[in-house]
Formats: sequence, C-alpha cells, structure tokens
Amino acid sequence: MAMHGKNFLMVPGPTNVPDRVLRAMHRNSEDHRSPDFPALAKTVLENMKVVFGTTTGRSFIFPASGTGAWEAALTNTLNKGDKVISVRFGQFSHLWIDMMQRLGLDVTVFDVEWGEGLPIDMLSNCIAKDTRHEYQAICIVHNETTTGVTTDIAAVRHILDRYNHPALLMVDGVSSIASIPFKMDEWKVDLAITGSQKGFMLPAGLGMVCASPRALERSKKNNLPRVFFSFEDMIVNNDVGYFPYTPSIPLLYGLKESLAMLMEEGLENVYARHRRLATGVRKAVEAWGLKICCKNPKEYSDTVTAVVVPEGFDAQQVIRIAYEKYNLSLGAGLMKVRGRVFRIGHLGDLNELMVLATLAGTEMAMSEVGIPIKLGSGVAAASEYYMKTSKQVRGLLNNGK
Amino acid sequence: MAMHGKNFLMVPGPTNVPDRVLRAMHRNSEDHRSPDFPALAKTVLENMKVVFGTTTGRSFIFPASGTGAWEAALTNTLNKGDKVISVRFGQFSHLWIDMMQRLGLDVTVFDVEWGEGLPIDMLSNCIAKDTRHEYQAICIVHNETTTGVTTDIAAVRHILDRYNHPALLMVDGVSSIASIPFKMDEWKVDLAITGSQKGFMLPAGLGMVCASPRALERSKKNNLPRVFFSFEDMIVNNDVGYFPYTPSIPLLYGLKESLAMLMEEGLENVYARHRRLATGVRKAVEAWGLKICCKNPKEYSDTVTAVVVPEGFDAQQVIRIAYEKYNLSLGAGLMKVRGRVFRIGHLGDLNELMVLATLAGTEMAMSEVGIPIKLGSGVAAASEYYMKTSKQVRGLLNNGK
Amino acid sequence: MAMHGKNFLMVPGPTNVPDRVLRAMHRNSEDHRSPDFPALAKTVLENMKVVFGTTTGRSFIFPASGTGAWEAALTNTLNKGDKVISVRFGQFSHLWIDMMQRLGLDVTVFDVEWGEGLPIDMLSNCIAKDTRHEYQAICIVHNETTTGVTTDIAAVRHILDRYNHPALLMVDGVSSIASIPFKMDEWKVDLAITGSQKGFMLPAGLGMVCASPRALERSKKNNLPRVFFSFEDMIVNNDVGYFPYTPSIPLLYGLKESLAMLMEEGLENVYARHRRLATGVRKAVEAWGLKICCKNPKEYSDTVTAVVVPEGFDAQQVIRIAYEKYNLSLGAGLMKVRGRVFRIGHLGDLNELMVLATLAGTEMAMSEVGIPIKLGSGVAAASEYYMKTSKQVRGLLNNGK
Amino acid sequence: MAMHGKNFLMVPGPTNVPDRVLRAMHRNSEDHRSPDFPALAKTVLENMKVVFGTTTGRSFIFPASGTGAWEAALTNTLNKGDKVISVRFGQFSHLWIDMMQRLGLDVTVFDVEWGEGLPIDMLSNCIAKDTRHEYQAICIVHNETTTGVTTDIAAVRHILDRYNHPALLMVDGVSSIASIPFKMDEWKVDLAITGSQKGFMLPAGLGMVCASPRALERSKKNNLPRVFFSFEDMIVNNDVGYFPYTPSIPLLYGLKESLAMLMEEGLENVYARHRRLATGVRKAVEAWGLKICCKNPKEYSDTVTAVVVPEGFDAQQVIRIAYEKYNLSLGAGLMKVRGRVFRIGHLGDLNELMVLATLAGTEMAMSEVGIPIKLGSGVAAASEYYMKTSKQVRGLLNNGK
Repeated sequence: MAMHGKNFLMVPGPTNVPDRVLRAMHRNSEDHRSPDFPALAKTVLENMKVVFGTTTGRSFIFPASGTGAWEAALTNTLNKGDKVISVRFGQFSHLWIDMMQRLGLDVTVFDVEWGEGLPIDMLSNCIAKDTRHEYQAICIVHNETTTGVTTDIAAVRHILDRYNHPALLMVDGVSSIASIPFKMDEWKVDLAITGSQKGFMLPAGLGMVCASPRALERSKKNNLPRVFFSFEDMIVNNDVGYFPYTPSIPLLYGLKESLAMLMEEGLENVYARHRRLATGVRKAVEAWGLKICCKNPKEYSDTVTAVVVPEGFDAQQVIRIAYEKYNLSLGAGLMKVRGRVFRIGHLGDLNELMVLATLAGTEMAMSEVGIPIKLGSGVAAASEYYMKTSKQVRGLLNNGK
Repeated sequence: MAMHGKNFLMVPGPTNVPDRVLRAMHRNSEDHRSPDFPALAKTVLENMKVVFGTTTGRSFIFPASGTGAWEAALTNTLNKGDKVISVRFGQFSHLWIDMMQRLGLDVTVFDVEWGEGLPIDMLSNCIAKDTRHEYQAICIVHNETTTGVTTDIAAVRHILDRYNHPALLMVDGVSSIASIPFKMDEWKVDLAITGSQKGFMLPAGLGMVCASPRALERSKKNNLPRVFFSFEDMIVNNDVGYFPYTPSIPLLYGLKESLAMLMEEGLENVYARHRRLATGVRKAVEAWGLKICCKNPKEYSDTVTAVVVPEGFDAQQVIRIAYEKYNLSLGAGLMKVRGRVFRIGHLGDLNELMVLATLAGTEMAMSEVGIPIKLGSGVAAASEYYMKTSKQVRGLLNNGK
Repeated sequence: MAMHGKNFLMVPGPTNVPDRVLRAMHRNSEDHRSPDFPALAKTVLENMKVVFGTTTGRSFIFPASGTGAWEAALTNTLNKGDKVISVRFGQFSHLWIDMMQRLGLDVTVFDVEWGEGLPIDMLSNCIAKDTRHEYQAICIVHNETTTGVTTDIAAVRHILDRYNHPALLMVDGVSSIASIPFKMDEWKVDLAITGSQKGFMLPAGLGMVCASPRALERSKKNNLPRVFFSFEDMIVNNDVGYFPYTPSIPLLYGLKESLAMLMEEGLENVYARHRRLATGVRKAVEAWGLKICCKNPKEYSDTVTAVVVPEGFDAQQVIRIAYEKYNLSLGAGLMKVRGRVFRIGHLGDLNELMVLATLAGTEMAMSEVGIPIKLGSGVAAASEYYMKTSKQVRGLLNNGK
Repeated sequence: MAMHGKNFLMVPGPTNVPDRVLRAMHRNSEDHRSPDFPALAKTVLENMKVVFGTTTGRSFIFPASGTGAWEAALTNTLNKGDKVISVRFGQFSHLWIDMMQRLGLDVTVFDVEWGEGLPIDMLSNCIAKDTRHEYQAICIVHNETTTGVTTDIAAVRHILDRYNHPALLMVDGVSSIASIPFKMDEWKVDLAITGSQKGFMLPAGLGMVCASPRALERSKKNNLPRVFFSFEDMIVNNDVGYFPYTPSIPLLYGLKESLAMLMEEGLENVYARHRRLATGVRKAVEAWGLKICCKNPKEYSDTVTAVVVPEGFDAQQVIRIAYEKYNLSLGAGLMKVRGRVFRIGHLGDLNELMVLATLAGTEMAMSEVGIPIKLGSGVAAASEYYMKTSKQVRGLLNNGK
C-alpha cells in the first residue's frame, strides 16, 4: 500500500534533492560535443573548487560514485606497494582501507573503537618515526558517516608540517564537503574526495575529486593501473571544455544549480545552518536520556548523528517502524554498530521543521519498541533551541524570492 | 533570502500536489481535438463521479476555479429573482451569498455566529412554512473553511424530504469532497461543487460540478445568463469526448492521476486518514490549552482546524513568524475572525510527520509571540494519539511499491 | 500502440510548451496569500502589458480560457441590449458573436465568405451613418484561426477616429498576441483579449485581458451581470498583489518564464520569426500547387495557414493519416470549411526544422490520400527560403547559452 | 542568443530521452537501503537481460559510463599479460584497444580501413592457428559508431566454435543493444557491454554489462586489479537487492520505464523501426549522390550513418551550420575521418518526422557550404520510402493511449 505525503529522507545520504535542482535536471539529453557544452563544463568545474576551498587545485568530475572517486585519488597518485597510513573508525574508512589493500598498497591501519576519532598521538608518533619518508600518503575520512565522528584535518596537516613530512594528504570528504567547513588550500589537502549525493544535494552519479598541484605532479609518474579514472584523460578533455566519456547532462545542470544555491546562501551560512540543525538533534538525544555514538563532543558531526539505543533494544526495529509506519527513512547502524545505533542524517537541503518531524517520528518509533523516552521531549528540547536561535529568513512585505 | 528545505504548505488549500501528480502533469500540450483525447476526457469525467458519490449525476469540469463552479451551479439552474436559502457562517458562505445576490437571486440568509454551524431549526421552520414552495434552492457550504465547521447535509436532505419540498439542494464541497465523506446520491444533492486544489491534490484551475438529473432538467428552462459556464455547451461537447474550450492538458492528466491515487487508497481509507490526522491536531490544541473556533464537536472539520489565540494576541503574528522563520504556511483568520484565529489545513496528501512538523512550528511561533504554551506539548499529545492508532502501511520484507 | 518520438503539435493552439516553461511550472502549490506572492503576481501582470503593447491599460488574468476572457470583456463594459458590431469570418468570430447574442447584446453582424477578411467599406459606412453613436462597441477578431485571415486593426481605429465615434474597440487577439504585432496603445484598443495557450506558449488556463482607461471607466456603470469575471473584484485584489480566487501557481510561474523568454528574444524578433516561418509554409503550399484559404495576401496570417485541398478530396483524411501514421497533429477545418481545409499552426515555440518536418509529414499524408503533389516539393521550397534568410543564431566558439 | 523550438538531437548518443522517461526520473532521492529498494533493483536487473537476449547470463549495472563497462568486462575476467584479439575500425574500437593495452593486456590488433568491418578471414586464420589457445578473449565492437559499420557477431561465434576455441567473446554493444538485434545467448557472447545513453534512451550514467556463466567463472580466478568495477562486490549486494555504492535513483526509475517502453513496443518492432528509419536515411544519401562511409551494404548500421562529404568540403562546417542555424545536432567525424564525414544518429526514441527534419536541415547546411545537392531530394527519397512502408500506429476512433 502506498504511503501518503512526503517521505522524510533523513538518512545521511543520499540527501533530499531540492525542487529547484530537480527542475534543473529535467531536460532532454544534449550533444556533449557541441560548441555550447564547454560553458557548462567549465562553470561547474570552476565553481566546485570554491566549495572545496581551493584556488590552486584542479577539479575532476567522474561519472561514478564516491567509491569511484576514492579509486581515482589512489590510482592516479600512488605506486604499487606504496606505504600509506589510514584510520579505521567506521564502515566507510574500513571500505576505503579495503580498497587500498586490494589495489596493492601497504596500509598501516590505526584501528580505534567505533565512536572514537583520529588517534592523534599515534599518528604523530608514526610520522615522527618515519624519517626516511617511507609513507607516501595519509588517507583520512573527514567525517565518518557510520559513527558521526569528524576528524581535525588541520591537526593532521600540522603533524605533517611539524615533521616536514612529504606524504600526500588524502581526505574523504564525502559526508562533509559542502556541509561543514572544508578548507583544501588552508589545510594543504592533496586529494579531496566527495560524491554528488550528500552536501551537493544531487542524486548519486558524480565522483568528485580536487587534486593539489603536488598530487597532479605525482600522477605523472606513478604506476597503479587506471584508465576510466585517469586524471590525464580527464585533463586533456577538460582543458578544451569536454569530458572523455559521455557525461550525465542532467547531473551537470543539477550541479550547476546546486552550486548556485550554495553560493547564494553563502558557504559560511550553509555551515552555520548545518551546525544549528545538528545541535538541535543533539539536544533532543540528550532530552531523551540517550547517548550519541561519538564519544568526544569536539568530534561531533554536524551532518549525521548516530544515536545509541539502550541495552536490550534493537535499533533496526526503530528504523523499520519509522519507515513502515511514518514514512521516515533513518540510517541503519553499520557493521560493528548494527542494531546498536540508528542514524539521523542532518545534511543537505533541510530546515527546522524537517528535523523536528524526524525527531517526532523517531520518538514514536522508539516508544513503540519500548525504549523509555517521553514523547515530545526531544522535539521540545530541539524546538527551544531553534526558537532561541531563530532568525527571520524571509523579508517582510516587499520581499521577492 | 531563500528558504531551505521544504515549505510546509498547511493552508486549507491549495494543498500539496503529490510528486506523482506533478510528474503526470509535466508534459507538452496535446491536440484537444485528436482521436485520442476522448479516452482521457471520459476517464476523468467518469471517475470523478465516484469521488462525488454519484452514479446518477453528470459531471462537469470547467477551466475555472471553485468560484466559477459556484457560478455554473447557480446560473444553469435558477431564474432571475428566484428565492433561495443560504447560511452565512464564514467567508466562503458569505462570498457565495454575495454572488447569489449579484446574480439577482433573492437570498434568505441565516446568519450565525462564526464558529457555529447550520441552524437546523431555523431551516426546518423556514421550509415547513414554505408550503407554496417559493424557495427554489437551498445553498449550503458543506465545510466552512473559514471556521472549520461542517454541515450535516443528510440532515438538510431530511428536512426537505420531511416537508416534501422540491427545492434544489446545492452544496459547496470545495474543502470537503475527496477528503471527508460526501454522498451525492445518498443525500440527493442536486449540485455538488468543488475545485481541483483541495482534496483532489491539484493546482487550482478546475471548477468541478456534478449535477443531478433533476438539476439538469431545470437547466433547460431557467433564464440566468451564462455562456462560459453553460451546462448545455459542455454536454454537447462532452458527449463526444471533447470540451467546448481548450482544456488544460496538464490538469486533466493530473486529475487522472489523483483520481487513480484516491481509488488505490480507497475513499473510506482517505476519509479515515483525514479524520485521524485531524484528531491529532485537535488533541494538540487541547494540550496547548487553546480553543478551536468550531463550537460544536459534532461539527469539527476533518480538513481544517481554526485555532483561537488567547485574548490580547494577534494570530497574524503567529502566521507571519511561522512563515518567515520556519517555512510553514498556515491559514489566516478571515474577515470577522481575522487576527483571532489561525488555521491549520489538514487535507490532501499528508501524513503524520507533516502534521507533527506543523504543530512543532506552530508551537515555536506561538511561543515567540508570547502565547503561554509549553513547547512540545501539542506534538506529544498528537504523537501519542498517532502512535496508538498507527498501522503498518508498508509491507515487511517483500513489499513492492 | 504507443507512438515513438516526439509528437509534432502543429495545431494553431494549444502550442508547444517550451521545456524551460515546463520546468518552471513543475512545482508544488504555494500559499497564494503569502507575503511572497505579490512579487510574482505583480511581475506577470506588469510584464504581460508589454506584450499587449500598452502602458496605459490595466491587465487582468482570469483562471479561465480565452472564451472566459471574451465574456469578461463584454460583461464588464456593456449593458444589456447594447448595439455592437462584429464580423463573422470563421468559427471563432462566430462563437464570440453567439456569446454576445446570448448575453443579450444587439449585434450587427457583417458576414463575409470564409477566407475573406474585414469588409472595411461596410464597416466604414456603418460607422459613418451612426451619427447618434448607438453602437457601443466594435468587436473584432484580429486573427481568425479558422481561416488564417488577419484584420487590420489600425484601419478599424482609423475609421472610428475619422468619424469621431466613441464605440469601444474590442479585439480578440487569442491567436495573434505574442506572435504577430499587436499595438494596444497605438491602435487605441479598449479591450484586448487572449489566452495562455497560443503565443504565450503555456497550457490553457489563463484568460488574459487588457483594458484601456476608457473601458475601465465604462465598467463602473454598465449592467451586464458578472461575478466570476468581474473587473472590480480583480482590481481590489490585484492592487494589493493578490487574486480574488485561488490562482494556478504553476501557470503563473510558467507565464513569468514565457514572458521572460519573449523579452529575451525581443518582441520584434518574435514577430519576424513568425513571419519567416509562415512565409516558408506559404512557399510550400505554392510549390504543391494548392491554395490557401485566405484570399488576400495582405491578410495572410503569420500564425496559421489553412490549406485548401483540391475538389474531391477530404482534408479530414489528410489530418487523420498525419496523426495516426506520423505523429503529426494538424488543425481540422471547422464548420463551413470542414473537410475542405487542413490547418498548419505555425505559432509559438517553433523553428525551421519543426516546420519542415510538418511539411514533410503533410506531403506524405496528402500523397497517400491521392492529392497529386510531388513529395519533397514543399519542403524544398520552404528550405530554400529558410536557407536564404537564415541567420546564425548561436555564437561561434565562445558562446554560452 | 537562445534557440527556439526543440533541439533536434541526432548525434549517435546520447539519444533523446522520452518525456515519459524524464517524468519517471523526476523524483527526490530515496533510501537505497530501504526494504522497498530491492523490488526496483531486481526489476531492472532482470528486465535488462531480456534486452540483451540472455536468460543464462548475469546482469550488472555500474554507476559509470560505457567506458567503465568496458573496464569492468576486461578487469573481471582477464589476467595481466593475457593475449586478446581485437579489431580497430573506428574511434571506439581504438579506445577500447587502448584501454586493453593500458591494463597490461597483449592485444593482437587487426587494423582495417575505417569504413570496413571485421576481416573475417584474418580472424579465422588467427584462431585456426592458435591451437594452444593462447588467446583468452576476442573483443569486438558490434556497431562502430565512428563509421556506422556493424559486425556479424554470429560469424565470430561460428569461427570460435569451428575451432573449438575457448576464448571469451566480449562484445561492445554500446550503440547496438536495444536498437538492433543482439542475441547474447544465441551467439554465446560472454561479456556484453553497453551504456544507458543510446538504445536505452536514458542520460549517460549507467555502465551495463551482462556476463555469461563462463565469464563469471573466470572472474573468480583472474588477477587484473579492480575494486570499483568488481563483479564480486556487485554480486554480493545484488543478491539481496542492493548495490555496493549509492546508485542513481533517477536513472534506475528511468531504466525501469525505458525497459517497460521497449517491452510494450516489442523488441522485434524496435529493431524493425530502427531498420526502417535507417533505410530512409540511406535512401536520402543516395538521392543526394553522396557516399556512406560504410563500404559493405551488409554491414550498414541501423543506428548511425556516416555520410562522406565530397572532396574539397569540410564536414565540420556542415555540422556547425546545422547546429548554429537550425538547432540540429549532428555527429562529427572522429579521428581519421574528421572533416570527411558527418554522422546522423538514428537510434532511440525517434520517428519519421524527426528523421525527415534532420534530412531537411542537413540539406540546408550542405547547400550553404556549397555541396552540390538538390534541396528536398533526400527528404523526398526518404518520404517516399516511409510512405510506402507506413503503418497505422494509432487505432482509429476508439483508441486509447
């Protein structure tokens, strides 16, 4: 039986596609070799750099997912057997590490308990000891979507700089870029990676990478095999405004529109909005008397919150009831935390009422499962915070739109 | 500055257009004189009768609004100077009466306090006394959108039948048909009127009327002028599957789709859903300690609730804050109740979380204005009711969609 | 069985809705009483005046069809029994006259053979003789869609001016405005009427009228009944940026977009494009050795061409084959010219290849019926003309879009 | 300056996306881990096999382009240094061979003049001599989009069978599958490859592969590196109805719809339609007195025709004029045939008039460049053929749609 009303899509990606972006994508195909095409290609390739926080880097758009962008970053800049460092603190860092290993890289993995973040001392020690600069790259997930834990990338850069270590800094920004501050140039990130279906508010289908000049230099000499994900093929074509493969015309127009939306709002406002909505969610969890998977408040993610259900309860049941009864899509606990957490994605094109509806739906689902929370308590806590911090966003009387 | 996320459109019409209907409407124009067109025209004209509850009546679709449908009903069946009875209990009944008067009808108006419903005894007396059958029609608004008060149309029919009175029974079902039970044949309604932008979940643009055989008979002899709204012109064209004027192709496809949705859900389920969502809203108002404009619980509307703000507060301020800060569109108090009430529309393609978001937004807006309500209290009351009455609407495991 | 590829919609309305306009219309409903709404309403009401060629007039948008706009023009400005002059030279002028008569006007009808235009001498004589100014209005169809005959409105104005006659000049511009030159102020038209589904490239659903100050003045005193089509109700609401009835949100956004497209192209370019495409069609008809219904080349319509089939052939067969075999929608011959002509609509969002495809499809359909035309002959004649008059419309190399 | 009317997209891919498919794709994202998702995934994975002509194979959908699908086919089934055979007869076979070489395969390339097809004797000799079965695969492009030359895959299979050779048969069906007959099981193709943007009438974004049981068996043991394009990861997820990476929700719904359209029309009818439209194009080229790039009529492609311009003319000029003046997108000559040919794509959602418009536009563009063709001649030749072979595709009178 069909559901009525809107689906509340509150998984941490894919995120809600704004109507404005859906409209921009509703168009017939176009000749991607036409004299008009380069204007579109160049606009999106240039504007996405602003969102990545780079003026010196080069942007790439692969017709792939974020997983493909991972592969592009690794295969274009590393050699078989290269030593790299990575941290495993959730499913996505795990999968990236798995890819590194399957591609023949020699990965030093820092495993931490899921809910914890970057073990900064271990990393620092490791770099300090590597005086022969055997490590070619440090590969870090900026925001681990599994646990809602963020990484202080500036701190990683600080370590590398302190020891004058030349390792490439690769950052998975899939669930961070365009939602929380990402400063590619400031942090001297060499390879920044994301996909279209999170902060960029698009369907999946674009694997996006920005590469620093240093990374591009490395790509000329390394030997990991790549064809589809080759930077070189992209560069040759992008330089004249085209792509080596048939691109998705709707997604490029959609990206143009979502970039315009991000610019119109202003990145700082985008980040502030995410922080504010996330804070409301965390106040609700506190009001429920529950715990957040992320242990260190300094590492709280502003794009996803993993809520730990009390012992004896199954988070999967909460998710199923939310979906089947209330048309609310929550994120599941993955791998090690399956059944122990459910996740509320609060990134992309959201507002207060979408979040409050989510909290209300979550309350009903938890209640039905028997988790002892007071109906309305989370909504009240978040509402209070939103009310106190609210701003008039529409003008009075003479406002346009 | 642009708002983020979805607008919560909770005015009592126009209602939210389901994505499925928006998709159905996204199409180029078509030749409305083609051999293919009649299949579309006949489908919608036939299926809309099911929603009106008639097998004996004839359906009309005018390229107009509900106001136009009022005019069609009156001008096709009455003569200049005809005596008609009507009840004024809100802006919409007021406007219809105004139309009757401007068209030269002699209207006996029963005025009641706004918030009250049909004065059944007055009507009964009036009919009882009219032994010469001077009244040609009784024109009643089924659901007064201004106040959230419904009318017991069966009771009106009962009075006419008791006194064997031949007056036409005209019913404005603009904010009732396709949302709450409407039984044209059972109630022997002669002219049932609605528009596309409420229970039919479409944009405005279709003025819909069903006429009983008796009404059609009258239309052959009456003398009020009409051309655009002529039943006769429509009948001649509809009989062969066409319309006398260029119809809106998107709206006809949209109507086909919304009728399909109503049939798939089942009208009784549609009505039950509206009742359940409305009950939650009323429980919230009670939890807030506020009053509903409609005085008699038996007359509570399941499509709109007008909430009375306490003395000293301005409902317009609540509405403005809800809109400007929370992207929530509430209905204003109209005419006599302007500033005294705000209205929550709960009709059309809605679900629990859309209503709960609305209640949460309303709470924040009321709080900011200073109305002493407890944040979360209304949401909690409605949530509790929804949770207790919830059903699994999606199948487990092997469900399709 | 479904047809493949695009339908070639070449009836003289509804016209093709540009993808850009379809996108603009794909949106959920909005609160038409919100503080944001007036910006939209005022934009479209103001910009449509540019297309009508008026700065002094007032624009009205009724949620109706062009037929409704006819009724609005008549009922707001005339009194029962008023004498008016009209010319019947096709189905649409016929239907408008029929409406006048049904509304109780006293119509002096000039009947001419279909294919002929305004009998300017008869009109001149009639006005010359009416020294007591008994005629209250002259109601003329600018472009008779049935026959493809246009009227020289400036000449009508000239007659009125010569005799200093105060009759209102009402012009049906349904198939002319936004496609061929229309100069409301220059020609001192008092009521200019159109619908959304022709030159405005929208679905049907908006009845559009511009009224001169003189017409507005008359509307204050006349007595034909109108409520739905009342100028007064519109004015009161429009003045504050709203409409008296729920408007079609998609159509208003669509109109905003189509107005933007007309402005971007420039009205003079729009007119030139229509003229050029129409000339190509006429060259094709000549190459086929067939006749055009319009007798006087000075009156050739640039929006529709009615092609006369030779004696012994049925134009309806041509139309049916074109539709059923080639997905081409041609316009039928109406009333007196049914079976004798088929019509090619060449107005709205069209280009050379859409017209040439139409000519090719028409050639195949005519051939199959047995009409002795040479396949490719019409296409060749039109192609030659288009080639000679072609311009580069896209920039070279560095063009954007 | 913007172009008016429809763009005629007649490149050999991306092809026109039917409105029905565009509508199906216009939707918000959905949780790709929901209990509802598998129904969608399984439907498209199963139905695409019908179009590939396989019941025994396994279907894969990668979030990539056809180039990615090439890489998936090669990396999943071959080992580094494996000997493979391929034929280079245009840009796409060239690029695939380039990929093979970059992936470390040892490619025996049969180079033929562009315009010629598979050198069947050379292949036969080569296979006959390879008695030690050193060749692991034969990789053939079924329809070389550069030249409009098709390959007789059944003949290739015949050779392998004759010599009982176990090489895998890999076929690039990018511009053939869903447009011209493709019989995976009958021809015992081991890896059939395509993308979404050609016969499937979708935007680019899906790399589609079907693998035979034998190919799947090989994939378990081979050693070419692949992660993103891993069959194994796909199988594990597909088996439970999901994908390893976030899929494009719009493209999956679009594919569901385009598959439904192909089934409704019937594959044999789809093929016949392509053949008929292609034949018309070839008749036009003949009427122009020009040559087709494909030398052997038995190898004429029914999806694309490369037209050779006479000596001394530049095909690029024809293409530019067609695009800039007539909104017609033709395909350029690629690499060796750049400037010497232009290409007309006639695959996907097309009908007679779209092709005839293309021919008319091409005639004007060629004429302007000075190529001595007679305007209308190609259109006439194609029209005559279409007329003689036309069928009534819509029902008479009582047809629905």
